Amino acid sequence: MSDFVAEHFAAVRTAADRIKPHIRRTPVLTTELDPHLRLKPECFQVTGSFKPRGAFNAVLSLMDRERPRGVIAVSSGNHAQAVALAARTVGIPALILIPEDANPAKVAATRALGAEVIQEGITFANREARLREVMAENKYTLVHPFDDWDVIHGQGSAAMELLTDAPDLEVLAAPVGGGGLLSGTAIAGRAHSASMKVIGVEPEQADDAYRTWKSGTIQSLAESPKTLADGVRTTAIGARNFEVMFANRLVDAIVTVSEEQIGEAVRIAWTRLRLALEPTGCLPLAAYLAGKLPPGRTGLLLSGGNANFGTVAKLLEHS
Amino acid sequence: MSDFVAEHFAAVRTAADRIKPHIRRTPVLTTELDPHLRLKPECFQVTGSFKPRGAFNAVLSLMDRERPRGVIAVSSGNHAQAVALAARTVGIPALILIPEDANPAKVAATRALGAEVIQEGITFANREARLREVMAENKYTLVHPFDDWDVIHGQGSAAMELLTDAPDLEVLAAPVGGGGLLSGTAIAGRAHSASMKVIGVEPEQADDAYRTWKSGTIQSLAESPKTLADGVRTTAIGARNFEVMFANRLVDAIVTVSEEQIGEAVRIAWTRLRLALEPTGCLPLAAYLAGKLPPGRTGLLLSGGNANFGTVAKLLEHS
Repeated sequence: MSDFVAEHFAAVRTAADRIKPHIRRTPVLTTELDPHLRLKPECFQVTGSFKPRGAFNAVLSLMDRERPRGVIAVSSGNHAQAVALAARTVGIPALILIPEDANPAKVAATRALGAEVIQEGITFANREARLREVMAENKYTLVHPFDDWDVIHGQGSAAMELLTDAPDLEVLAAPVGGGGLLSGTAIAGRAHSASMKVIGVEPEQADDAYRTWKSGTIQSLAESPKTLADGVRTTAIGARNFEVMFANRLVDAIVTVSEEQIGEAVRIAWTRLRLALEPTGCLPLAAYLAGKLPPGRTGLLLSGGNANFGTVAKLLEHS
Repeated sequence: MSDFVAEHFAAVRTAADRIKPHIRRTPVLTTELDPHLRLKPECFQVTGSFKPRGAFNAVLSLMDRERPRGVIAVSSGNHAQAVALAARTVGIPALILIPEDANPAKVAATRALGAEVIQEGITFANREARLREVMAENKYTLVHPFDDWDVIHGQGSAAMELLTDAPDLEVLAAPVGGGGLLSGTAIAGRAHSASMKVIGVEPEQADDAYRTWKSGTIQSLAESPKTLADGVRTTAIGARNFEVMFANRLVDAIVTVSEEQIGEAVRIAWTRLRLALEPTGCLPLAAYLAGKLPPGRTGLLLSGGNANFGTVAKLLEHS
């Protein structure tokens, strides 16, 4: 094991201990699809996605290092709820910037967790600028959704649990948006076994990580992509994620799946695996079903279950 | 513990050991709905329901006692797939009688497990008579879906596992159709704790078990009821089930839920618990949500996940 992997895996273990009282140890499921497959259904995690693993680690670490006045996050989805829950748990305020066109159900879920939500005048394009303004005003500390070591180490606890329960896995596959989950998965996977194959899965329509892997430098999407997998619409991975995944070569490959393949994976998840996953959570299953993963005993990190049910109902009508 | 409970719980333990290589140990889930709730999601069981627990115990016991030429079952649903799988596993033929108007997807699933299916001329009304004719012809052995001690003891393994994982539960709730799962649950529950409250849940439109509990004699429905919970359309519980549940008073109460309450439970299961359950599997959740279960730490046996997706898609459109 390289020093890089050893050092970061030690941090994953510390994160797992730190967040243990606040998160669920999700089960590992087997399936009739294939006896070599193991599923880690993070849809059963608190708030319905893996995101509290990283958010709790970041917020609890902040509480140890400094006493932040409050935390701030930019997210229209699962990271927003995770930061809101972590902040409420430690008793500090959370302020979440959510673009005006976000799903009202997710905004309501974030508010229900006690966060203050700012939506007025926030767009996908201006949100970074607005973030800096708001931070200058209130001196809250940013919890980045993926380009943050504490977040990366917290997300790694999911693969660590999976490999504790299923130590003979040879392949791990996880969705990749900004790269938080995939970076943590790669650290835990390579620490477990030097020969572990770690694969990131993204939609064809959001192939910046694929192009980053191929080119060796961070590539961006020109605009937020339209894809069923709305959890990975980030336009580029982060610098720390690049360092883990590609500079240190802990990720073996990025594979892409089509919208049709994502839709089919959602149908299989809901009808045959009996898992009510969001499309983003089905990305590794889509890659598996499309034959895009290497052979061997394979663990799929199914990242979350906060689906838009209108979309899923339409997909199910055709099954 | 009474001799009756002790004797039957010993048989549940024997069953659990016997079927162990063939079934899955499903996980126990916690939920944000209520910290006192524990879920046993049998939708993750092989074939998508708890039924293989009893079917494997019955078929493996038959193989020990006699060498049956084959097994036969009457079912349009989960029991059919369970018997087909158990027979294929031990290498004997399975013949399943399925009424002509059954869901083609379930017929196909049963055939895919290697069973011979007879549908021609089978109706809900004539199926018992047709069964006797076919049995007289081929000398196959019947595997009854609920009125059979081996089946009851096999089904009890689900509650036994749940109580091993969550030993402090005070209330257990399970669906009741013919009473196989509820009888096994009651045996395992009362063996675990004399003060365990065991509750059966059925649709208002199929309230024969409720009327049987109230009157103290087996009551029947005039015809197969129309309910979203199509797994509990049996018109009466069995004699052995009556013996366990009411003659020996191992079940504390039967509660009924409306079609609206079942539909709401399906929506909550799919959208908040992220479990793709069939409506029958949601009955205990419906009783919980409607406030019809006693207070205390509660385990819900969520019996299966073989849903009609057209029906669920319609329910989800309104969520």
